[in-house]
Amino acid sequence: MKICGFLQKNNSLDEKGRLAGQKNLLSCDNSDRDARFRLTETDFSNLFARDLLPAKNGEEPTIQFLLEIVDILTNYVKKTFDRSTKVLDFHHPHQLLEGMEGFNLELSDQPESLEQILVDCRDTLKYGVRTGHPRFFNQLSSGLDIIGLAGEWLTSTANTNMFTYEIAPVFVLMEQLTLKKMREMIGWAGGEGDGLFSPGGAISNMYSVMMARYKYFPEVKTKGMSAAPRLVLFTSEHSHYSIKKAGAALGFGTDNGYVPLFVNATAGSTVYGAFDPINEIADICEKYNLWLHVDGAWGGGLLMSRKHRHKLAGVERANSVTWNPHKMMGVPLQCSAILVREKGILAGCNSMCAGYLFQPDKQYDVNYDTGDKAIQCGRHVDIFKFWLMWKAKGTIGFEQHIDKCLDLSQYLYNKIKNREGYQMVFDGVPQHTNVCFWYIPPSLRSMPDSEERREKLHRVAPKIKAMMMESGTTMVGYQPQGKNVNFFRMVVSNLAVTQSDIDFLIDEIERLGQDL
Amino acid sequence: MKICGFLQKNNSLDEKGRLAGQKNLLSCDNSDRDARFRLTETDFSNLFARDLLPAKNGEEPTIQFLLEIVDILTNYVKKTFDRSTKVLDFHHPHQLLEGMEGFNLELSDQPESLEQILVDCRDTLKYGVRTGHPRFFNQLSSGLDIIGLAGEWLTSTANTNMFTYEIAPVFVLMEQLTLKKMREMIGWAGGEGDGLFSPGGAISNMYSVMMARYKYFPEVKTKGMSAAPRLVLFTSEHSHYSIKKAGAALGFGTDNGYVPLFVNATAGSTVYGAFDPINEIADICEKYNLWLHVDGAWGGGLLMSRKHRHKLAGVERANSVTWNPHKMMGVPLQCSAILVREKGILAGCNSMCAGYLFQPDKQYDVNYDTGDKAIQCGRHVDIFKFWLMWKAKGTIGFEQHIDKCLDLSQYLYNKIKNREGYQMVFDGVPQHTNVCFWYIPPSLRSMPDSEERREKLHRVAPKIKAMMMESGTTMVGYQPQGKNVNFFRMVVSNLAVTQSDIDFLIDEIERLGQDL
Repeated sequence: MKICGFLQKNNSLDEKGRLAGQKNLLSCDNSDRDARFRLTETDFSNLFARDLLPAKNGEEPTIQFLLEIVDILTNYVKKTFDRSTKVLDFHHPHQLLEGMEGFNLELSDQPESLEQILVDCRDTLKYGVRTGHPRFFNQLSSGLDIIGLAGEWLTSTANTNMFTYEIAPVFVLMEQLTLKKMREMIGWAGGEGDGLFSPGGAISNMYSVMMARYKYFPEVKTKGMSAAPRLVLFTSEHSHYSIKKAGAALGFGTDNGYVPLFVNATAGSTVYGAFDPINEIADICEKYNLWLHVDGAWGGGLLMSRKHRHKLAGVERANSVTWNPHKMMGVPLQCSAILVREKGILAGCNSMCAGYLFQPDKQYDVNYDTGDKAIQCGRHVDIFKFWLMWKAKGTIGFEQHIDKCLDLSQYLYNKIKNREGYQMVFDGVPQHTNVCFWYIPPSLRSMPDSEERREKLHRVAPKIKAMMMESGTTMVGYQPQGKNVNFFRMVVSNLAVTQSDIDFLIDEIERLGQDL
Repeated sequence: MKICGFLQKNNSLDEKGRLAGQKNLLSCDNSDRDARFRLTETDFSNLFARDLLPAKNGEEPTIQFLLEIVDILTNYVKKTFDRSTKVLDFHHPHQLLEGMEGFNLELSDQPESLEQILVDCRDTLKYGVRTGHPRFFNQLSSGLDIIGLAGEWLTSTANTNMFTYEIAPVFVLMEQLTLKKMREMIGWAGGEGDGLFSPGGAISNMYSVMMARYKYFPEVKTKGMSAAPRLVLFTSEHSHYSIKKAGAALGFGTDNGYVPLFVNATAGSTVYGAFDPINEIADICEKYNLWLHVDGAWGGGLLMSRKHRHKLAGVERANSVTWNPHKMMGVPLQCSAILVREKGILAGCNSMCAGYLFQPDKQYDVNYDTGDKAIQCGRHVDIFKFWLMWKAKGTIGFEQHIDKCLDLSQYLYNKIKNREGYQMVFDGVPQHTNVCFWYIPPSLRSMPDSEERREKLHRVAPKIKAMMMESGTTMVGYQPQGKNVNFFRMVVSNLAVTQSDIDFLIDEIERLGQDL
């Protein structure tokens, strides 16, 4: 077993004496304020979870254990931004399951020492993927925002639940103010309306379908779907699959229906980054009295940019909007909002008035209890990191983030649109940061279009991706779409990315792909 | 504005020089290993988010900023376990919204300095509720497990997503192994079956209803609820309201139905902590071919205790089980599992095969990609803290936790069952840690039962609770249930609680309630 070098052993009597009498050894510079911590060399090989707080004399080992964790984490943070660090150290599932040197995933009846727990933490990071690395382009969510990270650490330490003001007073108010600010940016008069942070865009989209159904057929809540005609949901072929999932889950069926109820307009589709024309769709929805939802999970962030917000023109006409700050705005996972223009409908749709949680006779204004609006009972605190980032960057900071990422995509597009060996998947300048392209290896360049060539081209992106992951240098997504064989989808949402990283990606694709 | 004392200013040239040349000042004890951090006194009043990584020369301010956060958090942790600290410092919503001294919740266009961000973090904790305090009894989830906390800090730093093995290899495998271990404890042969961690017990319960419907009426996925007869879900009056919410959301309706589909047996009801007789219910489900779900959100943890697991006898006959380690097992929020006996049904029910995410032509075994089983797309990493706690405590550590909490409830029950001024809400020894009781102030003790007395008694618990919160000494839940007027529901799930805290609660109720 590899023992990381930093776990220095010190079994001298002095060390033991120090652990027993920890109270005196905190470095208090000033008796008026909190003691500042001091990282010491502690021997964790004979310490166990049971020796930490609330154990008697547990305070010093607790602080030292947490500081060792912080040491691991701050080193990880530093290396994540260092381009000489690999994005990942790839292993197949069976390799990790068989157990790497000193890293065994199996659980047992007996406890492990804290020394082993620290090793496990290091190894968990070692065999993971650095989603904050400037060359990780694999997902719409990427980056490692330091303020957001600090916010998450605080959120974990507060360890509370959004369902009542009673146990999350500050977070509940932060959520309320932030949602109002988001509604103002959407353009709803006075920021009026309602909303919630939900566990991701798919659930936010599900909320929109539920509210639409409640708006037009409130009796479904008590009588079930048989109280409504067979309903249709409209969404585009390129829209996110969560709309279809919601249709299946909520009892509409995925290929069902006769009576139009709901239209989803996508603001920033997952693969192409395309924006549906919201105003045109809103005209139709108004004419036929349909619920208009805008899925801005990916594109919503552009509302923060004076330069790019026109791509969502008409969003203020939507009945509901999904907007995931954890995507384009670099907020740590998870942070997704469902916003709705009409007040009261979220509670109307979901409330069950559980007496044990939402007592009407509390001493404070119980309108601040949010739990009965949600389909969840307990709800994780997703707001704080986002609120803290907004404080620390200002709206202007988010705008700069978004403008920079779109500029980088433009740079990539300009670089490859006429470059030998590249073919763009769709015509024209990308609307979002999505740049979709085929890399065509030299062996295929002169080959005429045919089924054989398409089959060969289909295998290029997966092969290059596999080699990238095995060499650990970068990661980028690929997929087929409709008739199009596998192509790369490049996206940028990480503020750490520079033009040199875009250049690196292209060099890497060419290096790995030239002999295919 | 209050500037916390620890934010020492140092604007000397030396300080500025140090910031610029940060690389040389890390305290490297050994060139072979990672640099250990050193907390210095940094002036954050002229530093902003934009000065942190990925900014040029951002490494040192980044580390120092994160260490200041850790200083705040470790002090919070220490005080949480200190009984001389208040549980909360209560303020009404309007007070916090108007802005406390130096703490303004409003967001603005321009960034705040990192000094202000640190103040905001302190204030966020100051005006919150210490859910880990040994005298916080308000919720089924309480406590602050240090290993779990470390796990959450690491999870935030890794900032990834459970949907594919590709970007969460270690976490995906940890989830798989942990779920298998949980299924073994349920008693499913060989730990076979499937499952997921979901964002809370309500969503886990929703999954169970979806799977039941898919099992018996798979065509609902594509054709909608009109493809099935009008269906009934059975659950007890005391069961969690999430079963009803699921019925409403999924299109069953809350008071609908003719054809029995699904029975929910509660293992540990929210208010009374009661266990439904699973074996008797399973007999009926087998006879009539119904899906049996066991909602063990609260009671599932007792499976870890050889002394108490008999309360869930028959759980191995369930088709699906909800089990929230974030409740009785002290895992930080959120950590809830839905477990299912039949393999394949979770994917069958929810898969939509999104090509951009779940490519079949990846280089690894794509059976490890979990995303298409979920109703979510992105899914937060909830497994790591739980896995780490299991490693650090062993199964035996969870058993001790549970047995200790149940012993403490027994202590409370014995203390008050015959004590003057107390009346138990239900007869007999509590099955879980829930102890439900009325405190009857002296003024009501000799009053005969009447509408007037019931109305007065109904107001006692809210009044005492309000005074507790205003004095900040302790928190405990209350609610009415059926014909019963407001009563206290005491629960224990925090390992830090001792008999002295139980004594304190009773003393406090009597102190605050004696003159009502």
